Amino acid sequence: MLQYENDFIWNKDVNITALMDDVYQKLVTEKESKIAGYYTLGEDSLPLVDHVLENSQTNRYIQQSDTIVVIGIGGSSLGTKAIYSVFKHRYKNAKRMLFLENPDEIDLYEKLASIEKEKTIFIVVSKSGSTIETISIFKEIISRFYLNYEQQDRERIIAITDFDSLLYKFAQYYKIKVYTIPDNVGGRFSVLSAVGVVPLTLAGYDMKSLLSGAATMANSFFEKKENHLLEKAVFLTSHQKEYPMNVVFSYANCLEDFTKWYVQLWGESLGKINKNAQHVGLTPIGHIGSVDQHSFLQLIIEGPRDKTVTFIKLENFEKNIKIPNISLKFIEKADYINGYTFNELIDGECEATKESIIQQGINVDEITLDRLNEKNIGKLIMYYELLTSLCGKIFNIDTYNQPGVELGKQILLKKFN
Amino acid sequence: MLQYENDFIWNKDVNITALMDDVYQKLVTEKESKIAGYYTLGEDSLPLVDHVLENSQTNRYIQQSDTIVVIGIGGSSLGTKAIYSVFKHRYKNAKRMLFLENPDEIDLYEKLASIEKEKTIFIVVSKSGSTIETISIFKEIISRFYLNYEQQDRERIIAITDFDSLLYKFAQYYKIKVYTIPDNVGGRFSVLSAVGVVPLTLAGYDMKSLLSGAATMANSFFEKKENHLLEKAVFLTSHQKEYPMNVVFSYANCLEDFTKWYVQLWGESLGKINKNAQHVGLTPIGHIGSVDQHSFLQLIIEGPRDKTVTFIKLENFEKNIKIPNISLKFIEKADYINGYTFNELIDGECEATKESIIQQGINVDEITLDRLNEKNIGKLIMYYELLTSLCGKIFNIDTYNQPGVELGKQILLKKFN
Repeated sequence: MLQYENDFIWNKDVNITALMDDVYQKLVTEKESKIAGYYTLGEDSLPLVDHVLENSQTNRYIQQSDTIVVIGIGGSSLGTKAIYSVFKHRYKNAKRMLFLENPDEIDLYEKLASIEKEKTIFIVVSKSGSTIETISIFKEIISRFYLNYEQQDRERIIAITDFDSLLYKFAQYYKIKVYTIPDNVGGRFSVLSAVGVVPLTLAGYDMKSLLSGAATMANSFFEKKENHLLEKAVFLTSHQKEYPMNVVFSYANCLEDFTKWYVQLWGESLGKINKNAQHVGLTPIGHIGSVDQHSFLQLIIEGPRDKTVTFIKLENFEKNIKIPNISLKFIEKADYINGYTFNELIDGECEATKESIIQQGINVDEITLDRLNEKNIGKLIMYYELLTSLCGKIFNIDTYNQPGVELGKQILLKKFN
Repeated sequence: MLQYENDFIWNKDVNITALMDDVYQKLVTEKESKIAGYYTLGEDSLPLVDHVLENSQTNRYIQQSDTIVVIGIGGSSLGTKAIYSVFKHRYKNAKRMLFLENPDEIDLYEKLASIEKEKTIFIVVSKSGSTIETISIFKEIISRFYLNYEQQDRERIIAITDFDSLLYKFAQYYKIKVYTIPDNVGGRFSVLSAVGVVPLTLAGYDMKSLLSGAATMANSFFEKKENHLLEKAVFLTSHQKEYPMNVVFSYANCLEDFTKWYVQLWGESLGKINKNAQHVGLTPIGHIGSVDQHSFLQLIIEGPRDKTVTFIKLENFEKNIKIPNISLKFIEKADYINGYTFNELIDGECEATKESIIQQGINVDEITLDRLNEKNIGKLIMYYELLTSLCGKIFNIDTYNQPGVELGKQILLKKFN
């Protein structure tokens, strides 16, 4: 279960209800027109899970593997990694996942050194099918591990890409297993498509529960039962000048990669030139509590009032480790917390921080997960995707493209030609 | 060697030279008055390295250890972790370091499970001496590992704290080794004091070279040979309204923890109410290239023009892994990079991204490290500390306190009493 609390102070004279209705309608239209296809992935991807599981039964390379290497960058890795990081402490029997993202030699070298070809499935993920970092790293793997993709090693490889992309053609030609990403699902909205579902299912994660959580959230939204989402989108967009930044403060270390996924989703979707030629967008910033209270809270409280803050917290961790009833001579003032769990301490810190921020008149909202399970994470993913689409509609932009990064790619190409 | 390039477009009518001279003089005065003591740590901490090394020779627990556990949060861990992360790929014979920071049960449980008491040195770091997270985690360690700090295990423990703090008194009482942090060195400026020097030297890192790099930078600055720093401080502070955010884009994975250190240093130091009761500050955002080009670049280029961007890049990685001369059928368009190293690819991406951002009229500066060595990282640390102090002086704030976080601490205390 997810619970929501919005503590917004509306400085603007905004006709909130009208705007909420309007943007809701626009999203309904977008969903029905199938311009964006992620809305229904919670249901659409279910057969994929079964397909992957069946395929695993008959592929002896998958059976023998203990490592899944994902070669991909940006939208091709961030979502998968987010889910992997949230649950990896729990799945003790799952396969290890390794993400080869950055063409950073030190990082790459360390990771490659830990790979045993005989126990590894290599998944190449590129929506466009020719991402330079991804294809280059794939070549290094072919070379280093004598990976014969033309014949005997082809079953160690899986490609995930757009239908008919260059990578798709390559995979088809060599009879490498290939999964496609729906045309109307953008890279950063693709975690619930084959992009996330295939590697995580192979690794042993319960993706059906996660998908069902996402479906529940999407359906509930389109049944107009998630008004808090509409309210939040209207608030954030109508105050973008006053509050150009949204800080997500997650009170659990395992959500750190989730905040990175959010940063991409939010930043790349909303940072656009709109139809009136204005630069719009909201800058996403991810932090982890309580550790980043010691680095970023001072700025939120006393610095410029240019941020909204979203708290994400867990009601129940699984461990419930009690702070021992030990009194250290001279440090007795720290004993007030003895006998409480670390969970209660971190939860108390989240609440205390939130209250101190609210007292300053800073705009805050909170998402509470009653448990850290697949269903809730599926909901949370869909929550953020819907929120992003809503903000994009209000900003009057194309939420799903990224024209701004093209120039850099062209300059890069010229440098090496 | 570090090289600097500032590409600033001065929108403001600012008397740059006068401001640069003025803030330089203020820093000279601050250094001479010893209000802030970090300026000379590059020299002051050298004897500490020798002391730690000598102590290691005679302490059999240190001799037998293969793990250094640092229990600390915020300024007590971020700098140490930053240096550890930069070099850990290189020091294959160094002791493993483990950072217990967040009272997050899942994370804590995983890390505690990997500790063998007989092979571990536990370093408790708290400037105030009673940080609730740190003391609580220390209690858990005492309880879980039957750590007899009163007698036979005292030599497995080291405390690092302010002179005469509660932790200091505790350590003195039980004859636990204690190192102090100079009074005039704030937590987030303390990495070159005992806070970073003791654990990293124990682990086997070459802290003398790092300290000498820091000293070189500080001396060069005070000899007025680092005008680029003055210029950058004047630019960033005089344009804080137009550009409230500074994005540091580091093109090396091993600098990720360094950017977290920068975020604390920058955020907590500069986010303040100034002497005219104005909220001032600059929001620090850390990203890693090229991976975050796929998540954040679009926002920089097309979103609101509210950011300055700093590139940090390495001229030489150590590996020089060449992208193999392999041509994948149908994906031949990615072959333009074949035969170049991954280093050249990431460097090319950095340059291409920088050029594309500059073409948009966005303010950019760049710091280039010719090599990833201790000396350069020492310089980089001092560079950022000096820059922070300069900006603080221009903002007319107390750079070294953090009054904004007190309210949350009081609310927390009430919750458990």
